[in-house]
Amino acid sequence: MKIFHNPLHAQHAGRQEMYRGRLVPCHEVPDRLDHVLNELQRRPMGDLLTPNAAPERSRLERVHSARYLDFLASAWDQWVAVDPANAALDALPSVWPVRGFRADVEPENFAARMGLYSFDAGTPLMAGTWAAAQMGAACALAAADAVLVGERRAFALTRPPGHHAGPDFFGGYCFLNNAALAAQALRDGGIERVAVLDVDYHHGNGTQSIFYERADVLTVSIHGDPRTEYPFFLGHADELGAGDGAGFNLNLPLPRGTDWPTWRAALHTALDAVRGFGAQALVLAAGLDTFEGDPISGFHLRSADYLQVGADIAALDLPTVITFEGGYAVAEVGVNAVNLLQDLDAT
Amino acid sequence: MKIFHNPLHAQHAGRQEMYRGRLVPCHEVPDRLDHVLNELQRRPMGDLLTPNAAPERSRLERVHSARYLDFLASAWDQWVAVDPANAALDALPSVWPVRGFRADVEPENFAARMGLYSFDAGTPLMAGTWAAAQMGAACALAAADAVLVGERRAFALTRPPGHHAGPDFFGGYCFLNNAALAAQALRDGGIERVAVLDVDYHHGNGTQSIFYERADVLTVSIHGDPRTEYPFFLGHADELGAGDGAGFNLNLPLPRGTDWPTWRAALHTALDAVRGFGAQALVLAAGLDTFEGDPISGFHLRSADYLQVGADIAALDLPTVITFEGGYAVAEVGVNAVNLLQDLDAT
Ligand SMILES: [Zn+2]
Ligand SMILES: [Zn+2]
Repeated sequence: MKIFHNPLHAQHAGRQEMYRGRLVPCHEVPDRLDHVLNELQRRPMGDLLTPNAAPERSRLERVHSARYLDFLASAWDQWVAVDPANAALDALPSVWPVRGFRADVEPENFAARMGLYSFDAGTPLMAGTWAAAQMGAACALAAADAVLVGERRAFALTRPPGHHAGPDFFGGYCFLNNAALAAQALRDGGIERVAVLDVDYHHGNGTQSIFYERADVLTVSIHGDPRTEYPFFLGHADELGAGDGAGFNLNLPLPRGTDWPTWRAALHTALDAVRGFGAQALVLAAGLDTFEGDPISGFHLRSADYLQVGADIAALDLPTVITFEGGYAVAEVGVNAVNLLQDLDAT
Repeated sequence: MKIFHNPLHAQHAGRQEMYRGRLVPCHEVPDRLDHVLNELQRRPMGDLLTPNAAPERSRLERVHSARYLDFLASAWDQWVAVDPANAALDALPSVWPVRGFRADVEPENFAARMGLYSFDAGTPLMAGTWAAAQMGAACALAAADAVLVGERRAFALTRPPGHHAGPDFFGGYCFLNNAALAAQALRDGGIERVAVLDVDYHHGNGTQSIFYERADVLTVSIHGDPRTEYPFFLGHADELGAGDGAGFNLNLPLPRGTDWPTWRAALHTALDAVRGFGAQALVLAAGLDTFEGDPISGFHLRSADYLQVGADIAALDLPTVITFEGGYAVAEVGVNAVNLLQDLDAT
């Protein structure tokens, strides 16, 4: 397979996130990606490539709003303009437009715009965030482009991750939705029916939000039950899509503590949905935080299980773009990710 | 006038709030109320009273949802149940249900419920918050009850403040909306048309949200323009009410830096609206953060100006409940508050 990795990813390295009422060190660290790269040196899976440049803005606008992209592109400079001393600090939002509040008027105040375009206080934005996120999106788009010209599998090995980023909001460590960008690129390249399968521990609330009213992209997510697990406010089983998209969203929430056999049964349900949809290509949002050793998650998959996950997904026999999402057991995330790829790419 | 002050207010004393990406000491401190009490000892304005007990739950439910009240009543115990070490920490939310996310399903997770019922990360909740907020609501209700039995003015001198608290959300240092509770109590006591006039520097987004679709309570707010001033996402001039309430909300946003003559002109516009509505009673949400020395606000009223504010409002000649809202120039807030009361109570 072709593997596009993000040479600028380490420019995004958040220091602190709000977690249960205090600021704690960020879980989403550059080492995560480096461990996957190291494992790929040990067990090569294909060509290791980097994108040439940031993507064209028009490709980002296919899934993100123009004003959101304008904000992200200028956010760091605005943050430092508020106070030069901010250059030494990550930016975090502190106020949000909840139910009944307006999102139609974009405030001039920087803190207000941080809140307008986000949903949590756990996603710091820093000097290199936009460059890293853009080059990550370029990886996802390059992977989709590779598949469009005949590559069977392509892996976008990038961070920050993407699946929590919505049409116009960041959160959950995500700014640009790499999986959604890849799915849209496949659609724009002429593939009529694209499925996004999200196997991250956390519900792909951003991806669901982007495609919720569309019938051309099926979104399926297996994740911790949002009644108890982050990001909480989407991901329930009764969210089936709306409008034209009714019937084209499938959530498979599982209780904290779910083990491999139960998880695998949900995977098979998900794969049946992808088959039933008649998908002609797949985007796999590959979070590895289902791992038993993940510090912020609650499923019990073991490293060897990811070999089987890859094999089960390979049985779909679909052209596939894989995006790297969560996975916070840093020392093990490389082995787990490459295990997932190994049999996925064997067919 | 009768003055009901909150004997439990100091049980709510937040330590830190999120402000521009960092945790800073809370601006909303117990000393604020004590300075007003001290000034009232120097310049007595009437009987200083305390409520006998927390209010009946049914009176709170007139403006707040049952599930929100259930949450507030149990929040501290739940926070400590998550981890006994939390007893030494204030609770702050970190994730919110923004546009497209669901608020209909109440999550089991405590952090999720904190986010579901709030709109910022600047409003810490602690062991004594519920007791303090309840007794504050009792002050507001006692003040309304006093007016209903013939008292011309009554002052609810309490904190935490209330005007940012909505039907089912806290934020902006507010948990229960004292002004809205007083207005509703006046309505329930048989007064047909009640006006709420909010002169705090910050838009009364909670009060507006509570009465936005009602024609029996006119809400008027003079405040910093939400394009640049907290709480940002409501308070624009084009918010006129909706449904039955269309035409019964008036926002008078003013730019940061507004001086007394301009502010007073807006006050006269507001008072004309109250007269035009035919209000039979008034609730004055009395924030003193319009003061030139306020550390987090941007208008330029001086201490002596509050004498005139009170006199101008007194000219309405309406039975009036006053609630104590913002004002963070702690050393001056007592003089400013009592200046406001002085001529308001002279007629
Ligand atoms: Zn995750
Ligand atoms: Zn205020």
